[in-house]
Amino acid sequence: MTRALILLAHGSSDAHWRAPFEALEAALKKRLNTPLALAYMEISEPSLETTAAALAEQGVKQAEILPLFFAAGRHLRKDVPAQVAALNAAYDTSNAGLTLTLLPPVGQHPAFIDALATAITEQAER
Amino acid sequence: MTRALILLAHGSSDAHWRAPFEALEAALKKRLNTPLALAYMEISEPSLETTAAALAEQGVKQAEILPLFFAAGRHLRKDVPAQVAALNAAYDTSNAGLTLTLLPPVGQHPAFIDALATAITEQAER
Repeated sequence: MTRALILLAHGSSDAHWRAPFEALEAALKKRLNTPLALAYMEISEPSLETTAAALAEQGVKQAEILPLFFAAGRHLRKDVPAQVAALNAAYDTSNAGLTLTLLPPVGQHPAFIDALATAITEQAER
Repeated sequence: MTRALILLAHGSSDAHWRAPFEALEAALKKRLNTPLALAYMEISEPSLETTAAALAEQGVKQAEILPLFFAAGRHLRKDVPAQVAALNAAYDTSNAGLTLTLLPPVGQHPAFIDALATAITEQAER
Protein backbone atom coordinates (compact mmCIF):
# COMPACT_ATOMS: atom_id res chain seq x y z
CA MET A 1 0.00 0.00 0.00
CA THR A 2 1.96 2.98 -1.22
CA ARG A 3 -0.64 5.35 -2.72
CA ALA A 4 -3.78 6.84 -1.27
CA LEU A 5 -6.48 9.37 -2.08
CA ILE A 6 -7.48 11.97 0.50
CA LEU A 7 -10.86 13.67 0.11
CA LEU A 8 -10.56 17.12 1.68
CA ALA A 9 -13.71 18.91 2.84
CA HIS A 10 -13.99 22.32 4.49
CA GLY A 11 -14.98 21.14 7.96
CA SER A 12 -17.73 22.11 10.40
CA SER A 13 -18.60 21.51 14.01
CA ASP A 14 -22.07 20.42 12.83
CA ALA A 15 -22.42 16.64 12.37
CA HIS A 16 -25.31 17.23 9.93
CA TRP A 17 -22.96 19.28 7.76
CA ARG A 18 -20.43 16.45 7.73
CA ALA A 19 -22.97 13.72 6.84
CA PRO A 20 -22.85 14.10 3.02
CA PHE A 21 -19.05 13.79 3.07
CA GLU A 22 -19.25 10.66 5.17
CA ALA A 23 -21.86 9.26 2.76
CA LEU A 24 -19.52 9.95 -0.14
CA GLU A 25 -16.61 8.32 1.66
CA ALA A 26 -18.71 5.22 2.34
CA ALA A 27 -19.91 5.05 -1.29
CA LEU A 28 -16.35 5.39 -2.58
CA LYS A 29 -14.83 2.85 -0.23
CA LYS A 30 -17.00 0.20 -1.87
CA ARG A 31 -15.80 1.12 -5.34
CA LEU A 32 -12.19 2.23 -5.16
CA ASN A 33 -9.15 0.01 -5.08
CA THR A 34 -7.02 2.95 -3.91
CA PRO A 35 -6.94 3.46 -0.11
CA LEU A 36 -9.19 6.38 0.77
CA ALA A 37 -9.29 8.85 3.65
CA LEU A 38 -11.56 11.78 4.44
CA ALA A 39 -10.00 14.87 6.03
CA TYR A 40 -11.17 18.35 6.97
CA MET A 41 -9.36 21.60 6.28
CA GLU A 42 -10.42 23.17 9.57
CA ILE A 43 -12.64 22.80 12.65
CA SER A 44 -13.43 19.06 12.34
CA GLU A 45 -11.24 16.03 12.87
CA PRO A 46 -9.58 14.24 11.25
CA SER A 47 -7.52 17.18 10.04
CA LEU A 48 -5.16 16.87 7.10
CA GLU A 49 -2.31 16.54 9.59
CA THR A 50 -4.00 13.69 11.49
CA THR A 51 -4.86 11.94 8.24
CA ALA A 52 -1.35 12.30 6.83
CA ALA A 53 0.12 10.86 10.05
CA ALA A 54 -2.23 7.87 9.87
CA LEU A 55 -1.38 7.21 6.22
CA ALA A 56 2.36 7.50 6.85
CA GLU A 57 1.95 5.06 9.74
CA GLN A 58 0.29 2.63 7.32
CA GLY A 59 3.25 2.89 4.96
CA VAL A 60 1.62 5.10 2.34
CA LYS A 61 4.29 6.96 0.35
CA GLN A 62 2.18 9.10 -1.97
CA ALA A 63 -1.22 10.67 -1.36
CA GLU A 64 -3.24 12.84 -3.69
CA ILE A 65 -5.57 15.33 -2.05
CA LEU A 66 -8.85 15.96 -3.86
CA PRO A 67 -10.62 19.04 -2.46
CA LEU A 68 -14.39 18.55 -2.24
CA PHE A 69 -15.01 22.16 -3.15
CA PHE A 70 -16.91 23.45 -6.16
CA ALA A 71 -14.31 26.10 -6.84
CA ALA A 72 -10.98 27.44 -5.66
CA GLY A 73 -11.24 30.48 -3.44
CA ARG A 74 -8.81 31.73 -0.82
CA HIS A 75 -8.85 28.44 1.09
CA LEU A 76 -7.59 26.44 -1.87
CA ARG A 77 -5.28 29.09 -3.25
CA LYS A 78 -3.57 29.89 0.07
CA ASP A 79 -4.59 28.02 3.23
CA VAL A 80 -4.52 24.45 1.94
CA PRO A 81 -1.33 24.80 -0.16
CA ALA A 82 0.37 26.16 2.99
CA GLN A 83 -0.83 23.14 5.02
CA VAL A 84 0.37 20.76 2.30
CA ALA A 85 3.77 22.46 2.01
CA ALA A 86 4.26 22.30 5.79
CA LEU A 87 3.34 18.60 5.90
CA ASN A 88 5.58 17.75 2.94
CA ALA A 89 8.47 19.56 4.63
CA ALA A 90 7.81 17.75 7.92
CA TYR A 91 7.61 14.30 6.35
CA ASP A 92 10.66 14.89 4.22
CA THR A 93 12.62 15.90 7.32
CA SER A 94 11.40 12.94 9.33
CA ASN A 95 12.17 10.46 6.54
CA ALA A 96 8.68 9.01 6.75
CA GLY A 97 8.73 9.62 3.01
CA LEU A 98 5.10 10.61 2.53
CA THR A 99 4.53 13.02 -0.35
CA LEU A 100 1.23 14.87 -0.58
CA THR A 101 0.01 16.32 -3.89
CA LEU A 102 -2.85 18.79 -4.06
CA LEU A 103 -5.28 18.30 -6.96
CA PRO A 104 -7.60 21.00 -8.33
CA PRO A 105 -11.01 21.09 -6.61
CA VAL A 106 -13.48 18.48 -7.78
CA GLY A 107 -15.68 21.25 -9.21
CA GLN A 108 -13.04 21.95 -11.86
CA HIS A 109 -12.99 18.38 -13.16
CA PRO A 110 -15.00 18.00 -16.38
CA ALA A 111 -16.25 14.56 -15.25
CA PHE A 112 -17.68 16.17 -12.12
CA ILE A 113 -19.48 18.90 -14.05
CA ASP A 114 -20.90 16.25 -16.35
CA ALA A 115 -21.99 14.02 -13.45
CA LEU A 116 -23.57 16.94 -11.64
CA ALA A 117 -25.42 18.02 -14.78
CA THR A 118 -26.77 14.47 -15.14
CA ALA A 119 -27.93 14.32 -11.51
CA ILE A 120 -29.67 17.70 -11.78
CA THR A 121 -31.29 16.82 -15.11
CA GLU A 122 -32.69 13.60 -13.70
CA GLN A 123 -34.09 15.40 -10.71
CA ALA A 124 -35.52 18.32 -12.66
CA GLU A 125 -37.32 16.09 -15.13
CA ARG A 126 -38.77 13.62 -12.68
CA MET B 1 -43.12 29.26 -19.06
CA THR B 2 -44.28 28.99 -15.47
CA ARG B 3 -41.57 26.93 -13.71
CA ALA B 4 -37.85 27.42 -13.44
CA LEU B 5 -34.82 26.03 -11.66
CA ILE B 6 -32.37 28.38 -9.94
CA LEU B 7 -28.87 27.08 -9.21
CA LEU B 8 -27.62 28.95 -6.15
CA ALA B 9 -23.86 29.20 -5.53
CA HIS B 10 -22.08 30.95 -2.68
CA GLY B 11 -20.60 33.82 -4.69
CA SER B 12 -17.12 35.32 -4.96
CA SER B 13 -15.53 38.42 -6.43
CA ASP B 14 -13.07 36.11 -8.20
CA ALA B 15 -14.06 35.25 -11.79
CA HIS B 16 -11.93 32.08 -11.60
CA TRP B 17 -14.01 30.96 -8.62
CA ARG B 18 -17.21 31.48 -10.59
CA ALA B 19 -16.03 29.62 -13.71
CA PRO B 20 -17.09 26.07 -12.64
CA PHE B 21 -20.60 27.30 -11.89
CA GLU B 22 -20.84 28.97 -15.27
CA ALA B 23 -19.58 25.75 -16.90
CA LEU B 24 -22.28 23.80 -15.10
CA GLU B 25 -24.94 26.28 -16.14
CA ALA B 26 -23.82 26.02 -19.77
CA ALA B 27 -23.81 22.19 -19.62
CA LEU B 28 -27.27 22.12 -18.09
CA LYS B 29 -28.82 24.61 -20.48
CA LYS B 30 -28.14 22.15 -23.30
CA ARG B 31 -29.89 19.33 -21.48
CA LEU B 32 -32.77 20.73 -19.47
CA ASN B 33 -36.21 21.57 -20.72
CA THR B 34 -36.88 23.59 -17.56
CA PRO B 35 -35.75 27.24 -17.72
CA LEU B 36 -32.54 27.62 -15.74
CA ALA B 37 -30.87 30.51 -13.94
CA LEU B 38 -27.65 30.79 -11.96
CA ALA B 39 -27.64 33.04 -8.88
CA TYR B 40 -25.20 33.85 -6.09
CA MET B 41 -26.00 34.04 -2.38
CA GLU B 42 -23.64 36.94 -1.78
CA ILE B 43 -20.89 39.12 -3.29
CA SER B 44 -21.45 38.26 -7.00
CA GLU B 45 -24.23 39.20 -9.35
CA PRO B 46 -26.78 38.06 -10.27
CA SER B 47 -28.05 37.81 -6.72
CA LEU B 48 -31.09 35.75 -5.83
CA GLU B 49 -33.09 38.98 -5.78
CA THR B 50 -31.95 40.00 -9.27
CA THR B 51 -32.64 36.51 -10.60
CA ALA B 52 -36.09 36.33 -9.02
CA ALA B 53 -36.98 39.68 -10.55
CA ALA B 54 -35.85 38.54 -14.01
CA LEU B 55 -37.85 35.31 -13.74
CA ALA B 56 -40.98 37.12 -12.54
CA GLU B 57 -40.58 39.51 -15.47
CA GLN B 58 -40.52 36.48 -17.81
CA GLY B 59 -43.77 35.21 -16.30
CA VAL B 60 -42.31 32.41 -14.20
CA LYS B 61 -44.67 31.53 -11.35
CA GLN B 62 -42.72 28.85 -9.50
CA ALA B 63 -38.99 28.48 -9.11
CA GLU B 64 -37.10 25.83 -7.19
CA ILE B 65 -33.73 26.86 -5.79
CA LEU B 66 -31.06 24.16 -5.79
CA PRO B 67 -28.08 25.18 -3.62
CA LEU B 68 -24.77 24.15 -5.18
CA PHE B 69 -23.31 23.39 -1.78
CA PHE B 70 -22.01 20.06 -0.56
CA ALA B 71 -23.73 20.44 2.79
CA ALA B 72 -25.99 22.74 4.78
CA GLY B 73 -24.15 24.99 7.19
CA ARG B 74 -25.22 28.34 8.59
CA HIS B 75 -25.72 29.88 5.14
CA LEU B 76 -28.31 27.30 4.13
CA ARG B 77 -29.92 26.95 7.51
CA LYS B 78 -30.30 30.68 8.15
CA ASP B 79 -29.12 33.21 5.54
CA VAL B 80 -30.68 31.72 2.43
CA PRO B 81 -34.04 30.77 4.03
CA ALA B 82 -34.28 34.39 5.21
CA GLN B 83 -33.59 35.67 1.68
CA VAL B 84 -36.19 33.30 0.24
CA ALA B 85 -38.81 34.23 2.84
CA ALA B 86 -38.26 37.94 2.16
CA LEU B 87 -38.59 37.45 -1.60
CA ASN B 88 -41.70 35.31 -1.27
CA ALA B 89 -43.28 37.96 0.94
CA ALA B 90 -42.35 40.70 -1.52
CA TYR B 91 -43.70 38.86 -4.57
CA ASP B 92 -46.86 37.88 -2.80
CA THR B 93 -47.45 41.52 -1.87
CA SER B 94 -46.73 42.78 -5.35
CA ASN B 95 -49.01 40.17 -6.98
CA ALA B 96 -46.27 39.14 -9.35
CA GLY B 97 -47.13 35.68 -8.09
CA LEU B 98 -43.65 34.16 -8.07
CA THR B 99 -43.16 31.47 -5.44
CA LEU B 100 -39.63 30.36 -4.56
CA THR B 101 -38.99 26.97 -2.96
CA LEU B 102 -35.64 26.10 -1.40
CA LEU B 103 -34.40 22.56 -2.03
CA PRO B 104 -31.83 20.75 0.11
CA PRO B 105 -28.24 21.31 -1.06
CA VAL B 106 -27.16 19.20 -4.02
CA GLY B 107 -24.68 17.38 -1.77
CA GLN B 108 -27.58 15.78 0.10
CA HIS B 109 -29.12 14.27 -3.03
CA PRO B 110 -28.31 10.56 -3.39
CA ALA B 111 -27.96 10.95 -7.18
CA PHE B 112 -25.28 13.58 -6.61
CA ILE B 113 -23.32 11.42 -4.18
CA ASP B 114 -23.52 8.59 -6.68
CA ALA B 115 -22.42 10.79 -9.60
CA LEU B 116 -19.55 12.23 -7.59
CA ALA B 117 -18.41 8.77 -6.54
CA THR B 118 -18.41 7.71 -10.21
CA ALA B 119 -16.39 10.76 -11.30
CA ILE B 120 -13.82 10.23 -8.53
CA THR B 121 -13.55 6.50 -9.23
CA GLU B 122 -12.90 7.13 -12.92
CA GLN B 123 -10.22 9.65 -12.11
CA ALA B 124 -8.55 7.58 -9.39
CA GLU B 125 -8.30 4.50 -11.58
CA ARG B 126 -7.04 6.16 -14.73
